[in-house]
Amino acid sequence: MSCGLTFRALRALLACLALASAGASAHASDERRIAIAVHGGAGVIAPAELTPEREASIRAALQAAVDAGYAVLEHGGSSLDAVTAAVRVLEDDPQFNAGRGAVLTHDGAAELDASIMDGHSLRAGAVAGVRHVKNPIELARLVMDKSPHVFLIGSGAEEFALAQGLTLVPNEYFRTPERERQLERAKQSERAGGAKTSATGTVGAVALDRDGNLAAATSTGGMTNKRHGRVGDSPIIGAGTYARNGVCAVSATGHGEYFIRLAVAHDICSLVAYRGLTLDEAVREVLHVKLQGLGGDGGVIALDGEGSIVMDFNSPGMFRAARDSSGRREIAIYRDR
Amino acid sequence: MSCGLTFRALRALLACLALASAGASAHASDERRIAIAVHGGAGVIAPAELTPEREASIRAALQAAVDAGYAVLEHGGSSLDAVTAAVRVLEDDPQFNAGRGAVLTHDGAAELDASIMDGHSLRAGAVAGVRHVKNPIELARLVMDKSPHVFLIGSGAEEFALAQGLTLVPNEYFRTPERERQLERAKQSERAGGAKTSATGTVGAVALDRDGNLAAATSTGGMTNKRHGRVGDSPIIGAGTYARNGVCAVSATGHGEYFIRLAVAHDICSLVAYRGLTLDEAVREVLHVKLQGLGGDGGVIALDGEGSIVMDFNSPGMFRAARDSSGRREIAIYRDR
Repeated sequence: MSCGLTFRALRALLACLALASAGASAHASDERRIAIAVHGGAGVIAPAELTPEREASIRAALQAAVDAGYAVLEHGGSSLDAVTAAVRVLEDDPQFNAGRGAVLTHDGAAELDASIMDGHSLRAGAVAGVRHVKNPIELARLVMDKSPHVFLIGSGAEEFALAQGLTLVPNEYFRTPERERQLERAKQSERAGGAKTSATGTVGAVALDRDGNLAAATSTGGMTNKRHGRVGDSPIIGAGTYARNGVCAVSATGHGEYFIRLAVAHDICSLVAYRGLTLDEAVREVLHVKLQGLGGDGGVIALDGEGSIVMDFNSPGMFRAARDSSGRREIAIYRDR
Repeated sequence: MSCGLTFRALRALLACLALASAGASAHASDERRIAIAVHGGAGVIAPAELTPEREASIRAALQAAVDAGYAVLEHGGSSLDAVTAAVRVLEDDPQFNAGRGAVLTHDGAAELDASIMDGHSLRAGAVAGVRHVKNPIELARLVMDKSPHVFLIGSGAEEFALAQGLTLVPNEYFRTPERERQLERAKQSERAGGAKTSATGTVGAVALDRDGNLAAATSTGGMTNKRHGRVGDSPIIGAGTYARNGVCAVSATGHGEYFIRLAVAHDICSLVAYRGLTLDEAVREVLHVKLQGLGGDGGVIALDGEGSIVMDFNSPGMFRAARDSSGRREIAIYRDR
């Protein structure tokens, strides 16, 4: 079969396109565009379950998170500091499935995972299965900044937290009455032969700073009624979180097992870098073709090297917010609002 | 900047090339080519340290592993069974850093990680931080086959092992006098301000079966003198292990932190799938340009959808072996032998 063009010609074309794209990126950097997006989880959020009060409260929290991150960027701070600040706000808010208010395992405990990545240096930090660290995203950041490692799990991660001067909190700090009720309902449904787990929640942020550096961060309690030791995509660099300057930054949320199998965050970046898709096209391909094809659901927030924001999902909704220096401000839950 | 061709034209070309490649793959499947490659770790293996007896013993073990996997394929077995069989042989052999003979953490314990992936369904299983599972690759396989999850860690993974009927072994089973001496040397070097960790070992396998299904598996004890809870790339789907039918299967070994940051296994597959590189070119780009650029070292074994075997590394050597139905048989340690 002949395509009328050799691989060599194709590669020359790709090199040419890469140059064009690098030029565009330098141009964006001249404008010093800054941008941030956050998510508070995708999943089944039936409009009927969302009272006006609850919706207002969630929107306020998303706004607080995106503003906390934007304030960092606006004052010339780094995208790493911006995503850390935004995720910390959502971890501290019991409405989201991360930090305080995380969903509970089958055994009734909170087990937390988080990761962060610097698109400039490709440095990364991640933790999984921690039970006593108030802000797992801060621990992931410390793993990146203060250890020779990328990924620490369980009690080893908590030993490192103590060595770094973090104060541990009792597991009870994370538990809320609502999550206890949710676990009880999940167990009842499991006993009745229904769905064993539900995957909602997870929080994350992506940001582009004045220096053109991208960063991504994700934090979660995982799935309600998950088995002790189960880890989803959130702490997996390449699955739940990825960032590479000039290409893209991604934070994912959804049914983590499918996101791991597709290496969703890295795959989106690869489609942008290697196949020349726009970020929007790459996200659509991975969520609506590949993820959908496997039967997984969820969403991502993503930024490209020029600060274009993409927030997409194949679930009924995704808590999300975005803000950039071109004046874009958006808070939304469902596809159209 | 104009490249003389639009993105639309480029995409048409890529679609055309993808079709051409699918055609080639169907052709290979008609020939029912089977192939397997195994590795027993990359790293600094100074020829002076490798006595003739030791080298003969390592070569015999690599041959036993590749033959165990090949026997499965030859009898019409699946690539998943082949890589499981090959990795189990290397886990049981104390010469390699996986299963029995795994390197020891700073605390003197063995903490084991493993993962496996099915290129046909993209199902995957992984475990990290297990201390009492004789063959971690079997547990990773059970996570894939018998749980709704992909990744289980620590005591949660061991609870699942017990629930699946695996017999746990004392941590002492894994420890060998040589690994204890190695840990002592690493601690001495650390006290003297030298390198804190050494990254050698890790085992893995990739295979293509008669049905054209690819699979990859990796198992490790991690790094000598690693901190409790440190996890490298081996159990990370996308970093140490990845497989997708028609594209590639990869198992990696080396300084795991760098492999995670680059999502090495998935990146190699992406370069093949999205940029149309040959497997050999993709491996070279990732190991000798990207990994080298970050300062990481190690290697990979990889197979493409047609059964071409690539085994490459940027370290002085990599224990490796390969065998396929075209008659290729190879066992090697250094670049040229």
